[in-house]
Amino acid sequence: MQHDLQHTISLLARTPTALNALLRDLPETWTLCNEGEKTWSAFDVVGHLIHGERTDWMPRAKIILQSGESRPFEPFDRWAQERESRGKSLGELLDEFTRLRSENLSELRRLNLRPEQLELRGRHPALGVVTLSELLATWAVHDLTHLHQISRLMAHQYREAVGPWREYLGVLHCAGHSA
Amino acid sequence: MQHDLQHTISLLARTPTALNALLRDLPETWTLCNEGEKTWSAFDVVGHLIHGERTDWMPRAKIILQSGESRPFEPFDRWAQERESRGKSLGELLDEFTRLRSENLSELRRLNLRPEQLELRGRHPALGVVTLSELLATWAVHDLTHLHQISRLMAHQYREAVGPWREYLGVLHCAGHSA
Repeated sequence: MQHDLQHTISLLARTPTALNALLRDLPETWTLCNEGEKTWSAFDVVGHLIHGERTDWMPRAKIILQSGESRPFEPFDRWAQERESRGKSLGELLDEFTRLRSENLSELRRLNLRPEQLELRGRHPALGVVTLSELLATWAVHDLTHLHQISRLMAHQYREAVGPWREYLGVLHCAGHSA
Repeated sequence: MQHDLQHTISLLARTPTALNALLRDLPETWTLCNEGEKTWSAFDVVGHLIHGERTDWMPRAKIILQSGESRPFEPFDRWAQERESRGKSLGELLDEFTRLRSENLSELRRLNLRPEQLELRGRHPALGVVTLSELLATWAVHDLTHLHQISRLMAHQYREAVGPWREYLGVLHCAGHSA
């Protein structure tokens, strides 16, 4: 399946509502627990998604449109949420993510990107040359990789509670496939 | 983390709303595509969840309460949705899942299960002796295993479109861990 900008936007627009439906007011045993040292909770993931809205996707799209390969992207801080989410509630983070995503998608739609613009190139600090199309497709799959992570880390809390069914539940056998 | 019935119900109650937020009216390239032969689409998964509401969770809970280990559960048909979802739209399936889940949770709440009842035992046709507590915890983790699957199979559609970012996106390296 080729990248389709309208399909990407359809998915990106749904993530805040889906996370809100899943996580808001859920007991903290589901939302604040992680999978062990140096792993994230659902609370951490929402903070990470917020940081992406602020510093990753649209800022990088604008770098590609304005400077192409000549200006590499800023490296992304994968641990920024430890600092930025401090003192906030999960409800506040969900509200913030919803607002930022909505603003970013409004900006993306306003750009009214033409197919040839989607082929414009930028430079990732580690991956090298990438296209605007690849960046926008990655934005959507990045949402899905964190939905995948949230479902896994929540399931992890019941890994003992399910008893012998553990064998059948694929999510309990997933270690995350991190790079 | 021990099984906590109220936490289980909190999660079970959110799944229909979360799937609705994620999937309703999403382009069919996301909802009808699968990961290859003998794999499921999001449409198939919602059909499977419906079949579970009808034949698995509460029916098995009632067998435990009424007959204990003396009456093994009926084996679960993992492919029933091929037959039962035929001719329906995803929107219809989401409505049906929402209604059935709501009815089942009403019934579960009405049972007002005491801690000692959660330790009652039943007999799974393949796994052997299981407890009511394990069955109910599994109901919740089963939702999560399918949310994990849906995020993975949707991401799969963009596995080429993300270009070199593929390396960083754990969900694209997950093969499902099926038993």
